[in-house]
Amino acid sequence: MGSISGNPLGKAVIGQSGGPTAVINQSLVAVIKGLRGHSEISGILGMRHGVRGLVNDQLIPLEGLHDGHLSTIAATPSAALGSTRDKPDADYCNRIFAACERPRIHYFFYIGGNDSSDTCRIVNEMAHEANYELRCFHIPKTIDNDLPQSDHTPGYPSAAKFVAQAFMGDNLDNRAIPGVKINIVMGRNAGWLTAAAALARKFEGDGPHLIYLPEVPFSEEQFAQDVDEMVTRHGRCLIAASEGIRDASGTLLASKIQKSLETDAHGNVQLSGTGALGDYLAALVKANVPKVRVRADTFGYLQRSFCGVTSEIDEFEARSCGYAAAHLAMSGDLDGSLAIRRLSSKPYESMVERIELTDVAALTRTMPAEFLNGHRDVSREFVNYLRPLVGKLPVVGYLY
Amino acid sequence: MGSISGNPLGKAVIGQSGGPTAVINQSLVAVIKGLRGHSEISGILGMRHGVRGLVNDQLIPLEGLHDGHLSTIAATPSAALGSTRDKPDADYCNRIFAACERPRIHYFFYIGGNDSSDTCRIVNEMAHEANYELRCFHIPKTIDNDLPQSDHTPGYPSAAKFVAQAFMGDNLDNRAIPGVKINIVMGRNAGWLTAAAALARKFEGDGPHLIYLPEVPFSEEQFAQDVDEMVTRHGRCLIAASEGIRDASGTLLASKIQKSLETDAHGNVQLSGTGALGDYLAALVKANVPKVRVRADTFGYLQRSFCGVTSEIDEFEARSCGYAAAHLAMSGDLDGSLAIRRLSSKPYESMVERIELTDVAALTRTMPAEFLNGHRDVSREFVNYLRPLVGKLPVVGYLY
Repeated sequence: MGSISGNPLGKAVIGQSGGPTAVINQSLVAVIKGLRGHSEISGILGMRHGVRGLVNDQLIPLEGLHDGHLSTIAATPSAALGSTRDKPDADYCNRIFAACERPRIHYFFYIGGNDSSDTCRIVNEMAHEANYELRCFHIPKTIDNDLPQSDHTPGYPSAAKFVAQAFMGDNLDNRAIPGVKINIVMGRNAGWLTAAAALARKFEGDGPHLIYLPEVPFSEEQFAQDVDEMVTRHGRCLIAASEGIRDASGTLLASKIQKSLETDAHGNVQLSGTGALGDYLAALVKANVPKVRVRADTFGYLQRSFCGVTSEIDEFEARSCGYAAAHLAMSGDLDGSLAIRRLSSKPYESMVERIELTDVAALTRTMPAEFLNGHRDVSREFVNYLRPLVGKLPVVGYLY
Repeated sequence: MGSISGNPLGKAVIGQSGGPTAVINQSLVAVIKGLRGHSEISGILGMRHGVRGLVNDQLIPLEGLHDGHLSTIAATPSAALGSTRDKPDADYCNRIFAACERPRIHYFFYIGGNDSSDTCRIVNEMAHEANYELRCFHIPKTIDNDLPQSDHTPGYPSAAKFVAQAFMGDNLDNRAIPGVKINIVMGRNAGWLTAAAALARKFEGDGPHLIYLPEVPFSEEQFAQDVDEMVTRHGRCLIAASEGIRDASGTLLASKIQKSLETDAHGNVQLSGTGALGDYLAALVKANVPKVRVRADTFGYLQRSFCGVTSEIDEFEARSCGYAAAHLAMSGDLDGSLAIRRLSSKPYESMVERIELTDVAALTRTMPAEFLNGHRDVSREFVNYLRPLVGKLPVVGYLY
């Protein structure tokens, strides 16, 4: 099982899990390239649809792909290996471990959010107990930016860029045909992605005029007052609201609406992939702010999958995380996850660091107080944090 | 009032109307530039929010802007002068004509859809009757592509590109996490924009697997059967449905849902800027196709306003229409609208032609039979028609 380098001789397996991002395949391709040339690696396998493919023996050989194909895959949004929503329990993790032990897989890479890092952690502990060397690396990705220990998470900057460009356009639209416009942005537990709407502001009076995040309790009465105030001030109001906004008791507004609709003949309204929350907020405005045109859009899956809007820094860092995972796994008896440490903002510089699996597994990072501004906006500090990650945005100009 | 050239000496006025597009300001800037250097033009004025600004004397001087500013304006999506939803009747047109006659406006340019061309037509007739020379040009724009006489309409190719890239991404997303995904696309009376989803297909099995257009009567029973068939065949199903789908009697599905929801406490559900139709179709699938994850997104205003996705040919042609309007108005006693004539598809070449206002005013062009393929898809002829207008799309690759 040993080798001259001290690394175990065996196969590597790579999987992708959870909601896709625009750069998740950059990490995948970086792991493949980073493992090349290591004679201890007897094969590189891809899990079809994450750990589900691993336990069902649906694996794809990844070592024979030529560079041109890999570059195309890297630039393709969404999980090229297929993804899964499975959240393995102890029994499932046992099957994962068994599926590694049998064909002598000694290197385990899993690209995903905090559920995925938890899977890595459990499988890793099982391997330790069985005295089987399984080097487990979690490679972070999530558009939600809610993993701890890291300045930000690969996938977030590209999604934030999409949201910023969407709000830039919708601000221009709302300026041309004034009214109240509500946009619902993804992010169940943290407001990072919704907050990215703030980058759309360039000139005085630009929207979004109101930003509502899960971190701040949402009051329907206050909301109606806020909109009325902005309509009086600007003659219009553009709103960014997180799908995860919740009332003072912590109850998701979306789940309250779902309850009230469950008696409806059409039933089963979803918390995501549905326009229910936007329509509910629009109805609130109509009932409370007189004589105003109200529309609501729910950005939905476009935020994580839209083809053609990515942040270059995000692409670069997603690759860096993949390279780091491959390199660290071949550097000794190491396991872990990766975090991005920001070294400076002007010019933007960052480095990738190994962190322990226990530091990231099943934890959620919400927006800190200094990134908030009252109950309905983000701070300048947040904008300064986000701007370098997103890179250049389109230039727009006004006639009035 | 005359001049050596035979052109009346006076001011020009330019306005924008209806839903914004990504290239509507290309036409605006082209008219401004096209009028420069003509000594008969004593001033160029912009209407704030279309004819509403004209009759309310809210006009902006446009002749002193420097080229850099104009280039930025041209590249900015949405109507830079502001837009309006006003659809003038005869009395309103009288006020428009009066607002032109008073300050000696002799050149009238209106960028908009078929309502706008109708406004041009009526104002033009009033000027003729009053023996006042008012050269009226309608400059076409609409993401709906439903104006007659033209191969396509400026604004459509860019919106089609957005829809194609959105479906490319969502196809990858749906492939990574299989299920049923419904996307509602704009286009009340014609399916052109929804049909653009077909450009997302690159490889065998790619979605959209079903495309529903206003041109083909929609049956809820047939829809449920179609989805079931695709789920069996592909293990997933990506659907493009127009907001304008209607039943065999011609009734909009969206209006039927609105009726059923009017008794709801939240009331007033809109036909656009709402997720109601998507949620309704999702509920239909849930009720009829067992054990499948169903989500619905409504693309909404992003289709017409998203900042950063434009077709180069669309930008070019929107400018060409603006230049042509300015040039024709200075070339004799001419009025009219513009149409794009395709000369060849490979390589793509087109020219701009003058057409009569009566040829475009208040008419709607739906998709011809040869662009349809059965009740749930578009034809190869349609894809060949659209592809050169949209230009290059992102390149994607697969591992399985």
